[in-house]
This record gives sequence, structure tokens and C-alpha cells, in this order.
Amino acid sequence: MQSPDFLANRRFTLSELIEGLDVTIKGDPSCVITGISPIQQAKPGHLTFLTNSSYRKYLATTQASAVVLTERDVDSCATHAVVSANPHLTYAKIADYFNNTPAIKKGVHATASFGEHSDVHPTATIGAQCVIGDHVSIGANVVLGPQCVIADGVTIADDTVIDARVTIYHHCMIGQRVRIASGVVIGSDGFGFANNQGEWYKVPQLGRVIIGDDVDIGANTTIDRGAVEDTVIEQGVKLDNLIQIGHNVHIGAHTIIAGCTGIAGSTVIGKYCMIGGACCITGHISICDKVVITGMTGVNKSITEPGMYSAGVQGIVTYQEYLKNNARFHRLENLIQKVKTLEAEINALK
Amino acid sequence: MQSPDFLANRRFTLSELIEGLDVTIKGDPSCVITGISPIQQAKPGHLTFLTNSSYRKYLATTQASAVVLTERDVDSCATHAVVSANPHLTYAKIADYFNNTPAIKKGVHATASFGEHSDVHPTATIGAQCVIGDHVSIGANVVLGPQCVIADGVTIADDTVIDARVTIYHHCMIGQRVRIASGVVIGSDGFGFANNQGEWYKVPQLGRVIIGDDVDIGANTTIDRGAVEDTVIEQGVKLDNLIQIGHNVHIGAHTIIAGCTGIAGSTVIGKYCMIGGACCITGHISICDKVVITGMTGVNKSITEPGMYSAGVQGIVTYQEYLKNNARFHRLENLIQKVKTLEAEINALK
Amino acid sequence: MQSPDFLANRRFTLSELIEGLDVTIKGDPSCVITGISPIQQAKPGHLTFLTNSSYRKYLATTQASAVVLTERDVDSCATHAVVSANPHLTYAKIADYFNNTPAIKKGVHATASFGEHSDVHPTATIGAQCVIGDHVSIGANVVLGPQCVIADGVTIADDTVIDARVTIYHHCMIGQRVRIASGVVIGSDGFGFANNQGEWYKVPQLGRVIIGDDVDIGANTTIDRGAVEDTVIEQGVKLDNLIQIGHNVHIGAHTIIAGCTGIAGSTVIGKYCMIGGACCITGHISICDKVVITGMTGVNKSITEPGMYSAGVQGIVTYQEYLKNNARFHRLENLIQKVKTLEAEINALK
Repeated sequence: MQSPDFLANRRFTLSELIEGLDVTIKGDPSCVITGISPIQQAKPGHLTFLTNSSYRKYLATTQASAVVLTERDVDSCATHAVVSANPHLTYAKIADYFNNTPAIKKGVHATASFGEHSDVHPTATIGAQCVIGDHVSIGANVVLGPQCVIADGVTIADDTVIDARVTIYHHCMIGQRVRIASGVVIGSDGFGFANNQGEWYKVPQLGRVIIGDDVDIGANTTIDRGAVEDTVIEQGVKLDNLIQIGHNVHIGAHTIIAGCTGIAGSTVIGKYCMIGGACCITGHISICDKVVITGMTGVNKSITEPGMYSAGVQGIVTYQEYLKNNARFHRLENLIQKVKTLEAEINALK
Repeated sequence: MQSPDFLANRRFTLSELIEGLDVTIKGDPSCVITGISPIQQAKPGHLTFLTNSSYRKYLATTQASAVVLTERDVDSCATHAVVSANPHLTYAKIADYFNNTPAIKKGVHATASFGEHSDVHPTATIGAQCVIGDHVSIGANVVLGPQCVIADGVTIADDTVIDARVTIYHHCMIGQRVRIASGVVIGSDGFGFANNQGEWYKVPQLGRVIIGDDVDIGANTTIDRGAVEDTVIEQGVKLDNLIQIGHNVHIGAHTIIAGCTGIAGSTVIGKYCMIGGACCITGHISICDKVVITGMTGVNKSITEPGMYSAGVQGIVTYQEYLKNNARFHRLENLIQKVKTLEAEINALK
Repeated sequence: MQSPDFLANRRFTLSELIEGLDVTIKGDPSCVITGISPIQQAKPGHLTFLTNSSYRKYLATTQASAVVLTERDVDSCATHAVVSANPHLTYAKIADYFNNTPAIKKGVHATASFGEHSDVHPTATIGAQCVIGDHVSIGANVVLGPQCVIADGVTIADDTVIDARVTIYHHCMIGQRVRIASGVVIGSDGFGFANNQGEWYKVPQLGRVIIGDDVDIGANTTIDRGAVEDTVIEQGVKLDNLIQIGHNVHIGAHTIIAGCTGIAGSTVIGKYCMIGGACCITGHISICDKVVITGMTGVNKSITEPGMYSAGVQGIVTYQEYLKNNARFHRLENLIQKVKTLEAEINALK
């Protein structure tokens, strides 16, 4: 089990790799780079990067031929340095040269099936066994992986890439340059039931899902269609894997959400938010712009001020300590009563 | 990004919409309704509803032409009112008139494949590229979306609708009028392994999954087959998206469970329960009928009395406050010791 | 809704069932066994097992014809006993005789499609509508269920079984005897974005996913490909349903993880760990070998000693008690201040 060897045979000089980037080289621009590696594992010929301070300790000993880093780390770097105000972004752009994703096989696969009145741009690629409904519009350079099911009335704008086995329900709208990973389900019915003497009567889900431009959606994530209004994911939103977005939710532009988080129905989330993994956000609340929620947080009410928020008690401890912590917590009332008694006794003594 | 316009060209009078419903109109029964909207966004011609008290503030100013509400709100309503003892249910039935789900294309798609000895009712619809195994029974009016995989020995009863890309493993039984969203997996092996000197030996999973009538199952939810007995979801149960149901679990009739909740193996849940999102219910316990569990609750022992239950500490706070809360919590022992010392000192003083 | 009847017509004597196992029979080895049941539901003719002490109470009254148990329970058993040092393992091996999974239909289905330069072993079974890319290698006796999408450069080693509707992205490597349930996605892009003045720029994900021998992966679980290095799941790891594994994660051999757990990027987990359901493990940490994490635990820092760990406050209580608990918790600062005041007052009194 080793690093990828399917990257073989790529060679660039450092100066080629930084062409057009707002960076400077400290060292030899003609240094040849043949691969990318993490700083602690890099070998001669590799470029690496320093974006997480906990890895700074490897800077003096890395075998990498070049490191992308900020001005403040350059003096600690024993090899060629690419100095950037934003090393993560610079790294991302350099790493594109080493992207090994196989080229798409262009064209419409013979096994794809199409409904009536659909409008597929001649430059679009439709994978094997895709099932396209009626009145579907697919833009220029769109790529659908194998076995996607695109229902009636769906619109997919230019340059969007949808991987294998994705379902998009009827009348949903997908923006430009959207990327959707395998297994995603967009536009299934929201979870709406009216109680009728203990039993549940299904409420028709009349809205759609609207996905803005430049949105990314991770594997097996689900986004429900709206009950009445639409569910809206604005431009530039990034969603990780196994996220659940309830009906009528509205997520503002450039918000990023980590995996396993669930957002209940009709909640509105602002722009430029960062939401950690495994969060649970209740329904019918609003979160304003520029809010950071740490991982595994239950959000039970609206947030009206930008800032960083958390909930509950966390911190890993041994199971024995956890049992004691829990016992202490459940005996808090007892402690409160003891303090009251002490207060009374002291007052009597005074 | 606006409300759906694919609803165009539907027009009903209020009296047409309430035909057969146990409601009264306060206002003009001939008022024409052309769409449905949330109360705060409704426009003239729209019908809306008031079922969540936090939206009552919009009642005086809504532009809707009609509002479904209860008797107690009728005097605050400035427009035509549909007065109902159960506005949510009334709304659901009215909204059916505006349901825009495209009609199913009847029949068996040419690309569907069938095993031997299968019994597909002539009124059933089988979508493109469905793969049906041997000895499968599919009832009247059943609809399978594209790319469903229905393994050997599965039974699907009348009027059930299964959306695209659903897997049902061998010998599972699906009731009548069940709805299953895209990406659902029913009957994969339960998570059973015997430890053999540190390594794990797979325990055969011999049971099935039995889904009762009128069950709804949300997108990408997974329900494991039983280890020995069956996993059973009784009639009328409603499951949201991305739920995990372990092997041998038994869920009683008309229980409703929100998204991202996981239920570990062999747990029995009663009838008429309501379980919030992102809950984690441990294995081998029982929860009685009519239990409500709030969202994000860990259920670590059986519940024997109906009622509402929660666990832990919740409540969103700023990250700074969260750090202080955690520090205080982890210093509880210190506080307890201080109180003990105080008690001793006071006793000495007395 | 009854126990499976599709098990009919299997009959073994107890002595046939234990052939080759390191166990002893206390009772009649010629006793005929026709099925397997849980101890509390077993009928005459059934074999059952006792591996969870909470079921010991049924031992005296079970109608089973035989029970697999340990030496210490044998005297409480009123029927024939199979005495084993490891009843769960013994049961698993006996249960294999009653495995009712339908036989695979061998061969390559006519609707499967293949890219160029792929190497499919003649003994491999490829299900209906599988889509196999270029340069794919599929070993002896491999089984792919219907509608799997296996992208370019993937290697699947001998005797691996992949169920319906699984996606494996390009260049991932799957070991021998691996089992993957329906809906799994392996090798989708990791969640890596560089922030560029508030907007997110995608970081190319250059690594692969490497799955070791004898790994099991549950339904709809997702495993992201590495950002730079590979994501690695070592041999014998068992993953339940709806688990999310981030990029660059490394999970050591024979570790077992229950459903709905998420592991953030670049975290390293040791061998022989047991991780409960619905845990959330943060990124860039290490967990050493032989660590047990209880369910619904947030792991926020590295663990360097074997043992059992938990976090937070748990324990289900009534909603009223929960509200009080939360109020007490959020007033802890108040209590701390009261105790400080008492200390000062007592010091003044002394």
C-alpha cells in the first residue's frame, strides 16, 4: 500500500508550475517537480505545502524539493520555497498539474435513454444507461456519469459535472459548473405529514430544489424538494458527503458544510458560514451570515450575530471519568441544595 | 430563484377545493385559487395555511386570498378563511389539487430485465433498466422507477411506489401503498460479526426485512435484514432520509422518525412514537408506545412510560461560553470537594 | 409477519452441524435441527445461542432443541447444549448451514459494458448493466451485482463480492474477499477547498482509496479518495452502514466501526479498535491500537493509550428533567460564585 504510482511521467520545473500565480520563488526556479506529497512523506522531486501549523515541525527535515508556504515560514525551510500569501490556494492551483482524473469519454452513450422534448446540448456527455425524462434541458459541456436518472423538467446548466448514479427529481434546477458526486439524491419529497388521529397523511411537496452555480455536493448527500416554496442552495456552497437538507431550507452563497450534518426543514442559513461535521440544525430557524458552528453541535435556535458557536459538553475522557462526570452532572441538584443549606447555616452563624 | 412556475394554469374556487372536507369557509366560497404559498410570501390568488404558531404574526398582513386555520385564529384573519379543526390535514388535502408530480409512463420499459418465475401484475409499471430477480411478486399498480434492483423472492404489494435507484435484497416483503425514495437500500446484511481472537468472523444474516402497509421511506435510508428473526417496520411508519435501521429492529405502527437517526440492532420501538433527527438509539432495548424523543438524543436504556424524553446538555452558545461551560463541567469534582470542605468547616464552627 | 419460511426443508443432526468445530455436545448428538431462532422465540427443532447475558433468563424455558453456550451456562440449560469457549463464533459457523442467500447466477450479463484494456477473470460474475471502465482488473471469483460502476484503473482482487449499485472511482484498489453492500461510494473526491477571499477553490484530490483484504463495507457508506496520500482501510476492517470516511484517513487492521459514524480527514485510527455508532471523529488526530469508543462520542483529540473512551453527558431522562439539567448546567457559574462567597465568609468567621 503505497502512494499513487499512476501519476508517473509528469515533470515540470518550479517556474512552469507557478506561471501566472502571485508568488515568489526562494531557491531554484528550474528545480524539477515530478509529484506531490505530504510534507512528512515527501521525497526528492516532490512538491509539498505547509498550511496547517501542526505540520511545521516537519519543515526542517522534509525531503521535498519544494515547499509552498507563507513569508513567515520561509526562513525555516531548508529547500526551495514557493512563497505565497495563501499557500493552500497556491497549492491547489499547482496540484491541478498533477490531476490524474481520467479524461471523460465524450458523447452520448448508446445505452442512455431519453424522453420527449428534451434539449441536450451537442457538447454534453451522457454516460451509459442514463435515463433522461421529458422536457429536460442539459447545457454545454455538461457531463453525466453512468446511470444517472434525470427526471422530467430538470434543467442542468453549462459545464456541470455529475458523477455516476445520481438522481435528480422532476423540475429541479442545477446551475453552472456544479459538481455532484455519486449517490446524491436531489429533489425527493420533503418529510411532511399531517397527523390525523395518530396516523400520518402525506403532505404534497410542491416545491423544487434550486442549486446555484459552482456548488459542490458530496457522495450520498440528500436534498429534499420544498413543501411549498423551493429548497435553495445558493452559488458557491460546498456540501460534503452524507448531508441531509430538509424541505424549504435556504443556504446562502459560499457557505461550507462538513459531512453527516442534517438541516431540518424551513431553516435559513446565511452566506459565508462554516458548519462542522455531524451537526444537527433544527427547523424553522435562521442563522445569519458568517457564522461558524463547530462539529457535532446541535443548533436549537436562531443565531443573529456572526461568530463562532458550539453547544453542550464535549472532550474525550476515559470511560471511568465519563461515568463520574455523568454521575456528578446528574447530582448537580444535590450540590445546589447543599450550597443553599451552607448559605443558611452561615447566615445563622453570622 | 423564484417559486415554481411549473404550477401554472390551475384554477379552483375555494368551494371546489374543500369539497368533501369537514371545514367551513368564512368569506367568499367562489374566490379563485391559482397556487399555494407560505403565509409570508403568498400573493393574491394563493391559498396558504397557519399550522405553526410562530407564523401567526403574518396573519394580519398576508396577501393570500385564503388561509386554512383553526377557529381561534379566524378573527385575526383579514382575508377568506378555511376553518378546520386540523389545518395541517386540510391543507394537505387541498394541496393535492396542486400536485405537479409528472404522470407516470405506464408499462414495462424495454430495458428492464426479469428473472424466472416472477409474477408481475399487468397494471404494474417497471422503469428503465430495472433488474428483477427470480420468484419476485409485484402487485397491481406498483410503480418501480428506473434502475431499481429487486432481488430473488421479493414481494411488493399493490399500489406501492418505489422511486429510481432503490435496492431490495432477496426475500424482503414490501406492503401496500408503500413509498420508497431514491437511493434506499432494504435488506442488506446486518452488522453481525463474531470475534475470533481479535479478528471478525461474519455471522450469516438469515432474516428478512418486512415493511408494512402505508410506510414511507426517505432517500438513501438503509434498513438491514435480520440476523435470525426479521427486521420489521409496521404499517404507517414514516422514515425520513439517511436513517439507519439495524438488524432485528422492530418499529411499531404509525411511528415517525426524522432524518440522520440510527437505531442499533434488536431494539423494539412502540407504536405512535415520534423520534427526532440525528438520534442514536442503542441496541437491545425497548421503547414503549407513544414516546417522543427530541432531536440529537442518545437513548441508552429502555423507556417504559409514554412521554417526552431527552438527554445530555444542549443549547447553542458562543464558542467562548462553550469553552467556559466545558471547563466548569470538567471541574465539577473540584466544586464538590470545596462544598465538602465548607460543610466540615461549618460543622466545626457550630 | 412471521419468521422466514424460505428456510424450509433443511435438516441436520447436531453432530453434522458441529463437525470440525472445537465444541462438545451435552445431550443428544442425533437431535435434528431444522432452523435457527432467537432464544425467546425458538420452537422445537430450532437451534439457538446465548451470547448476551441479558437473554440468560430465557435459558430455562426456551423451546429450542439445542442451545450454543459456554461451559458456565450449561447446567442451567434444560435442552441439548453445544458447549463452546466462543458461542458467538460457533453459532456463526453453524448458521452458515442455514444461509438462504440465493445462489449467484454466474457469468457476465449481456447488458454489462466494458471499456478498453480491462482484465476480467473468466470466473468472475458481472451483473446486469454494470459499467466497467478502461484498464480495470477483476480477479477470480469476483461477483459484481447489477448496476455497479467501476471506473478506470480500478483493481478488484479475488473472491470479492460487491452488491448492486456500488460506485468505485478511478484507480481505487479493492482487496481479496472484500464484501461491499449496495449503495456504497468509494473514491469520490475528498472535501478539500482552499479559501480565496471568502469563496472556495477546489483542491484536486490526487490520492486513491486502498481497501485491504477481508474488509466489509455496509450500505450507503462513503469513503473519499485521498487529497495527496491514499485513504487506506486495512485488512479485516468492518464498517457498518452510512459511515463517512474523509480523505487521507487510515484505519488499522481489524478495527470495527458501527453505523452513522463520521471520520474527518487525515485522521489515523489504530488496529483492533471498536468504535460505536454515530461517533464524530475530528480530523488530523491519531487513535492508537485497541481503543474502544462508545456510541455518539465526539473525539476531539488524539488517544495514545488503549482503553475505553467517551465524551459529554448522556443518559435519557424525561424532557422536564432535561430542562432542569440544562438550566442547572448553564447556571454552574452562579454556583461556583456562591461557593467562593461562602469560602470567604467562613474564612471571615474563623
